[in-house]
Amino acid sequence: MELLNTLRWRYATKAMNGQLVEQDKIEAILEAIRLAPTSSGLQPFEVIIVTDPEVKKKIRAVAANQSVVEDCSHLLVFAAWDNYTESRINAYFEEMVKQRGFDERMDNYRKFLLGNYTGRPAGLNYEHAARQAYIAFGIAIVAAAEQRLDATPMEGFDPAGVDEILNLKERGLKSVTLLPVGFRDEGNDWMVNVPKVRKPKEQLFSFVK
Amino acid sequence: MELLNTLRWRYATKAMNGQLVEQDKIEAILEAIRLAPTSSGLQPFEVIIVTDPEVKKKIRAVAANQSVVEDCSHLLVFAAWDNYTESRINAYFEEMVKQRGFDERMDNYRKFLLGNYTGRPAGLNYEHAARQAYIAFGIAIVAAAEQRLDATPMEGFDPAGVDEILNLKERGLKSVTLLPVGFRDEGNDWMVNVPKVRKPKEQLFSFVK
Repeated sequence: MELLNTLRWRYATKAMNGQLVEQDKIEAILEAIRLAPTSSGLQPFEVIIVTDPEVKKKIRAVAANQSVVEDCSHLLVFAAWDNYTESRINAYFEEMVKQRGFDERMDNYRKFLLGNYTGRPAGLNYEHAARQAYIAFGIAIVAAAEQRLDATPMEGFDPAGVDEILNLKERGLKSVTLLPVGFRDEGNDWMVNVPKVRKPKEQLFSFVK
Repeated sequence: MELLNTLRWRYATKAMNGQLVEQDKIEAILEAIRLAPTSSGLQPFEVIIVTDPEVKKKIRAVAANQSVVEDCSHLLVFAAWDNYTESRINAYFEEMVKQRGFDERMDNYRKFLLGNYTGRPAGLNYEHAARQAYIAFGIAIVAAAEQRLDATPMEGFDPAGVDEILNLKERGLKSVTLLPVGFRDEGNDWMVNVPKVRKPKEQLFSFVK
């Protein structure tokens, strides 16, 4: 299975060389994110792609000063909806009607989702949205690695700081993860030749048969 | 990119035919889960693979009676750690020392993680662990689809019910998602020929350049 080779190839790159990634390869990563499954298909997140050197520098300052934030080619910021709202849910179904035509069953499902989400606390809805972003985040990591692009899955940053730099609050978004994409700087990355550590399968899997 | 074809091929299968998936294909999915990246490499989740028909039936009863839970070949239950504890963090580093040898930098990182996690509320740690499980969940969906196996990403179930059926509480785990894997029952699945709906990229992506 090609996926397994891809996963074995990748590692959490700690130093990048500043080289630019071709646009079509970035587009392929974004398309994988777009196609990622999410709960009820709501896709409750956005991805902000940062290449502006000044903005990268500001984000680095709130991201434990990690050099990859600046030395990557494209910095992907995954930001989840801060809440599921009526207008967001309705907008999704309007898009569906546009693509599939009106369907009463789907419209009932819309009403069910409105009932399910709009009465819940925003914090609970945000946590749920964040989880969906993580599905796409994982698939983006695969999409980069399949193209033999390096990437660094990152949670080690100050979300409020990133939200402020990118004005995410006013867009109803909260940053959840960063994914710098680019090319490894082999000479300066102590991680490059370190063997991947994973638990033996006996510790991760159990069977009920 | 093969991943994009894989993602276009898959859909949230709503009816399966009960046919058994070959063991090596299941093993490949589990290996993809094992290789999935997680925060600090802690892999804070387990996956329980259910093939026992009686147990599947019980889980179906707490999963909105969805037939795929019973008619799949293998039911994968993703369960996150209910908390990050000292013994869990130390066990991870013991595994690392076994695989890589002792490294002072890593031991300092272990101490940093103990300081970071063990003082936080269990609920916060669980939410973090659940997000890591979602990375692996997304990659498992890709792993199934790459082998042209059908799968149904599911959140629509009662987690407390599943936890009780599988005795997860006493193992310090909480179920977060289900992934029935098997073969579609084309004649009975209304979703099989429905076009995939995704937001146009303008709604998901923005650029800071």
